[in-house]
Amino acid sequence: MGIRLGANQYGKAENRVVRVYRESSRHELYDLNVSTSLRGEFTAAHVTGSQADVLPTDTQKNTAFAYAKRHGVSSPEDYAIALGRRLLEAAPRAQSVQVRVEQYAWDRIPVGGEGHDHAFIRRGDGTRTVAVTVSDRDARERIAVLSGVCDLVVLKTTASEFKGFLKDEYTTLKEADDRIMATSLVARWRHMTTETDWNASYAAIRATLLEVFAATYSRALQETLYLMGQRVLEAHSEVAEIRFSAPNKHHFLVDLEPFGLENNGEVFIAADRPYGLIEATVIRDEAPDPGEAWLAVPAFT
Amino acid sequence: MGIRLGANQYGKAENRVVRVYRESSRHELYDLNVSTSLRGEFTAAHVTGSQADVLPTDTQKNTAFAYAKRHGVSSPEDYAIALGRRLLEAAPRAQSVQVRVEQYAWDRIPVGGEGHDHAFIRRGDGTRTVAVTVSDRDARERIAVLSGVCDLVVLKTTASEFKGFLKDEYTTLKEADDRIMATSLVARWRHMTTETDWNASYAAIRATLLEVFAATYSRALQETLYLMGQRVLEAHSEVAEIRFSAPNKHHFLVDLEPFGLENNGEVFIAADRPYGLIEATVIRDEAPDPGEAWLAVPAFT
Amino acid sequence: MGIRLGANQYGKAENRVVRVYRESSRHELYDLNVSTSLRGEFTAAHVTGSQADVLPTDTQKNTAFAYAKRHGVSSPEDYAIALGRRLLEAAPRAQSVQVRVEQYAWDRIPVGGEGHDHAFIRRGDGTRTVAVTVSDRDARERIAVLSGVCDLVVLKTTASEFKGFLKDEYTTLKEADDRIMATSLVARWRHMTTETDWNASYAAIRATLLEVFAATYSRALQETLYLMGQRVLEAHSEVAEIRFSAPNKHHFLVDLEPFGLENNGEVFIAADRPYGLIEATVIRDEAPDPGEAWLAVPAFT
Amino acid sequence: MGIRLGANQYGKAENRVVRVYRESSRHELYDLNVSTSLRGEFTAAHVTGSQADVLPTDTQKNTAFAYAKRHGVSSPEDYAIALGRRLLEAAPRAQSVQVRVEQYAWDRIPVGGEGHDHAFIRRGDGTRTVAVTVSDRDARERIAVLSGVCDLVVLKTTASEFKGFLKDEYTTLKEADDRIMATSLVARWRHMTTETDWNASYAAIRATLLEVFAATYSRALQETLYLMGQRVLEAHSEVAEIRFSAPNKHHFLVDLEPFGLENNGEVFIAADRPYGLIEATVIRDEAPDPGEAWLAVPAFT
Repeated sequence: MGIRLGANQYGKAENRVVRVYRESSRHELYDLNVSTSLRGEFTAAHVTGSQADVLPTDTQKNTAFAYAKRHGVSSPEDYAIALGRRLLEAAPRAQSVQVRVEQYAWDRIPVGGEGHDHAFIRRGDGTRTVAVTVSDRDARERIAVLSGVCDLVVLKTTASEFKGFLKDEYTTLKEADDRIMATSLVARWRHMTTETDWNASYAAIRATLLEVFAATYSRALQETLYLMGQRVLEAHSEVAEIRFSAPNKHHFLVDLEPFGLENNGEVFIAADRPYGLIEATVIRDEAPDPGEAWLAVPAFT
Repeated sequence: MGIRLGANQYGKAENRVVRVYRESSRHELYDLNVSTSLRGEFTAAHVTGSQADVLPTDTQKNTAFAYAKRHGVSSPEDYAIALGRRLLEAAPRAQSVQVRVEQYAWDRIPVGGEGHDHAFIRRGDGTRTVAVTVSDRDARERIAVLSGVCDLVVLKTTASEFKGFLKDEYTTLKEADDRIMATSLVARWRHMTTETDWNASYAAIRATLLEVFAATYSRALQETLYLMGQRVLEAHSEVAEIRFSAPNKHHFLVDLEPFGLENNGEVFIAADRPYGLIEATVIRDEAPDPGEAWLAVPAFT
Repeated sequence: MGIRLGANQYGKAENRVVRVYRESSRHELYDLNVSTSLRGEFTAAHVTGSQADVLPTDTQKNTAFAYAKRHGVSSPEDYAIALGRRLLEAAPRAQSVQVRVEQYAWDRIPVGGEGHDHAFIRRGDGTRTVAVTVSDRDARERIAVLSGVCDLVVLKTTASEFKGFLKDEYTTLKEADDRIMATSLVARWRHMTTETDWNASYAAIRATLLEVFAATYSRALQETLYLMGQRVLEAHSEVAEIRFSAPNKHHFLVDLEPFGLENNGEVFIAADRPYGLIEATVIRDEAPDPGEAWLAVPAFT
Repeated sequence: MGIRLGANQYGKAENRVVRVYRESSRHELYDLNVSTSLRGEFTAAHVTGSQADVLPTDTQKNTAFAYAKRHGVSSPEDYAIALGRRLLEAAPRAQSVQVRVEQYAWDRIPVGGEGHDHAFIRRGDGTRTVAVTVSDRDARERIAVLSGVCDLVVLKTTASEFKGFLKDEYTTLKEADDRIMATSLVARWRHMTTETDWNASYAAIRATLLEVFAATYSRALQETLYLMGQRVLEAHSEVAEIRFSAPNKHHFLVDLEPFGLENNGEVFIAADRPYGLIEATVIRDEAPDPGEAWLAVPAFT
């Protein structure tokens, strides 16, 4: 009977890298949570305990911080690509490196009607995410970039229905003509190339997602996700595919009849658990093969 | 040896009340987390098990939802006062009622440059809080109102020092001329009366807190909190006192010297634990007696 | 109009102190979360920004770690008292010091039927807590000790009812003859003196709490808490009072009738929010004045 | 340019199913968190908005509760298989169904030296997990069962080193001869068949994991994980492969030298972030193809 090492990866998770640019009195702030993973031929580390091929996670951490200075941060994508290349170079037995970044958004604090030079307030309306996979080296180098957003909590108070669904003997749900629809959206999209204006692309796609959510009638969360994805792919030729993970944050109409009150879509209870969970991919026919792009990316089908 | 019941309270916590106004096509949304507590003469419930004087927490929940319709929600303070009065009326053995509300902020989703009529995105830059205590009845009725904000995460990249502190044999901290200062602010302020434009007062005080944080030099978080409080009391005669609870969210300069790199306040690690925790009250000399206003309010000295 | 500093405190929160005793090959492990707060005359730090009287929170952290070695940890109470005394001594303008400790429990991993010498598994069945307040100095020194437990999640599948309660027009709850009762108990008890075998006292009181919960019939969570408190005070003359904070973790019977199934107390849904929250104190008539013992202790009336 | 729906799934997440057996006065308690996902041909739901093929997540929830009664719960695996089969049958356009279950462990409360009949205390030393995938129907039905454990927090105070690792210009880590090693283990193992005594198998594998962690010397977390996996596969012919996800919960030795104190592996600070994250698979050569077994299972390479 043979027993052997299968798929494996290791790295340093959740390096809280904060990068300040203070070249002028108007400071810039990048607030990142950086995780790195190396994959490759690390059998010895597992089977014999030899660490000779292992670039320690502590070194990966140091590199993440050093690269915030040496390479700098103009976008999480650009920083992640540079860091991933460096780690692949530093670990000869690694075959690929994944770098995941979350970027927390900060606004300038308004003082006298203007944003302050060096004081910031953290915005909570969604977190920008990046997952970059660098594989192989030299002429065969391949870079897959996933950009995305998570914790984008959106809600519409009307223009959402759910009816005409399949019924069986365990069905008790009533059809709904007009309901609250809400979700905490996770979306990730894969780029065709690495030649992109990352910040502009991110801002435009985020805006598109919000607009479609707001402005289209919804027959189900599935339909709304698909429309979002379709619109993003139509408007952004740089995007090969987009994946969504969307909890249906149920808001149940409260029965006020026992108290002699009408409730015409006015009073709801926001429920915690259970929740529907809808996950979908919208993809371009000519999308290139994803390779390892989606490997070990959390929360996706 | 005598054993007896001491201080006690009971109620329903975390009712997730969502109230939609849809009188016009431009919907309004109030997203609340409501907790109620009754205090009073409930010895029988504890000692003999008789529930004859106990208004069930389930009824308190029903009342919270019904009042979102019957009384309506124009501000969390106004709603909490009405709910507190009702519960005190409904439970003859209660001597006081505390209603705590958190209000989650939502923005309209921008579509074509305008905020949408019925689609919203949740903002995460701080949560509005209220704690109302209604005590006694009839002519002796007394209402204490605490307004506040929590989870207001702010950071300044300069204009903050910490030096000249007391030293002993366990001191290793170096003096800092220029550091990042960051906190997740909790502030609660007590009103002099119930005759206030709650929403306008909240918006103005929140703006004042942010402005002082941004625009004043800081010799310590203590000084900054005091300045915030002083400015609020000076500008808002409706406020009797204000209390702060402020974790010092440490950002440590990363040592890049081993890698041949300078770090002039550019690369930091955001630390989790431990953290400094600074709590302070700024109070007006003529502030009236708080009574039970601060009783059982979380996170305050 | 005068504005002044009111109540205030500052310190270092959540020092994760892990103390290992390795005098023999059978190691001992104390896993602590330590928070310290100084209270006193710190007006200058707030009003003028002078830190001359301020023992930095960084120094408090250093002292917490150094005392784990210098004084050692035989119980969280004993360690907290020593640390509190030291901090009061080190900060001449402090009038009192509060030290709060959470102790996470670990079991030895069973190997061949015996607990291992140096390998442990973390137990999650409740966390031991301590809050010690040391006030004044020298001959007038006063030490208040609160021991406790939190996150003690208990459930009984029968022997619990809830009926005969007060009804009003918002009441819809049905009386229950037989229900699940569950809570995540927080209890803290105040000691009469500092002359106690802390570990033995803790173990005995924890066992008493559990036994009363299990073995007594419950007409309401209030009654059960009172019985627990009464039994603790009767059996433990070292305890002056005990306070409880107990969420009623509702388990609702699921309606299976639409599916042609009976549900005789067999299938429940465990709900998240809202939840009842019951808080009560049981106190001995001759309990000494608590002074600042309960000041700023989280989650208590 | 063609745009189309790619991989997708939907279901109800986190149904908190609590099942009590009360046939005798000695009650049995199963406390489950159940999530279901359907995958298949659901293009219409996404593209045209038609829900005619969609078995609502609400119905999936009802089925989860009804099956706790109709089929019953003897083990989470057995229950998940039954529920998965039912959902596949109920949704003709589904091609596969995944059912994920977490089971929270409860002990009987000790009263007079014996475990009580109907009162329980929740244990926190790890959560049992199951992920079952049922695909295809009738003669081609295929069932993949992953059993596992998560949140198994273990620590050893010695018998762990980390040295001989690869070094580059970003390396500052010192070699360690004797350190604390701790992790919060996630392990999932895939069964060869569905003919297993699920509860006995789980208990034995969990015990094996703990024993290997405790009793073997560690040259790195990688080596320890591999040894655990090897031992499980050697001892359990019913297991085809096992996967681990293990954060390295760093415990850093505190420098007490500035205070004139030695620290011989006695005082540590338990760090939060960043942390190493080690993931590895140990697999049997003759393991059958996993199919969709690992698809969308959180936290795995």
